[in-house]
Amino acid sequence: MTSPSAYSLRPRIRVTRGDVVIIGPGKADLLEAIAQTGSIRSAAEAMSMSYMRAWSLIRTMNASFREPLVEKTRGGAMKGGATLTPTGEKVLRIYHEMDETSLKAAGPGWKKLRALLK
Amino acid sequence: MTSPSAYSLRPRIRVTRGDVVIIGPGKADLLEAIAQTGSIRSAAEAMSMSYMRAWSLIRTMNASFREPLVEKTRGGAMKGGATLTPTGEKVLRIYHEMDETSLKAAGPGWKKLRALLK
Repeated sequence: MTSPSAYSLRPRIRVTRGDVVIIGPGKADLLEAIAQTGSIRSAAEAMSMSYMRAWSLIRTMNASFREPLVEKTRGGAMKGGATLTPTGEKVLRIYHEMDETSLKAAGPGWKKLRALLK
Repeated sequence: MTSPSAYSLRPRIRVTRGDVVIIGPGKADLLEAIAQTGSIRSAAEAMSMSYMRAWSLIRTMNASFREPLVEKTRGGAMKGGATLTPTGEKVLRIYHEMDETSLKAAGPGWKKLRALLK
């Protein structure tokens, strides 16, 4: 019999518009990776996705918010880099809050569900 | 400018074991469809998936819980049909509760996020 601890709960928040995910787990991870690496290319590599794919996700986010979430930084030591804008940092922070709050709220149900799992 | 009401929030709960989703939005919808149609084939058709795919999802769920969630009903008027077991009904109910509770908990963050959306 498998221990219930092998299971995990993932309430992954998605904000959608029609079928398009504006922000969800993948895009939030991409924002996080850009914040950490300072580069779209490095962030894409860290997530095993192509630069074009990463840029396409960023374009979707940038076009959906009042202010862009990611901006390219040109020139100087940061040539070719990218950074989160203040709005990007705010969106990422709010996203993580929502994810954590949801996880916590699902706790009682999760406990009931675990009791039914092998 | 697009109205923020065009966006929607989807905290879709997933219980995973490694990379395998034990129960998530797709499997919950399948359970719901089986409860409504009394047939795996009809449920699969309603969800535009093959019978084999539906059966594969059911097998994953049945193997993960202490009791199966779906059982085939044989003979009589229900020949070829399928039904949720008491555990299946319970799991579906708990799943929906968790989804709703999570959605509610994400409300304050969602309000902040909407203010940043176009």
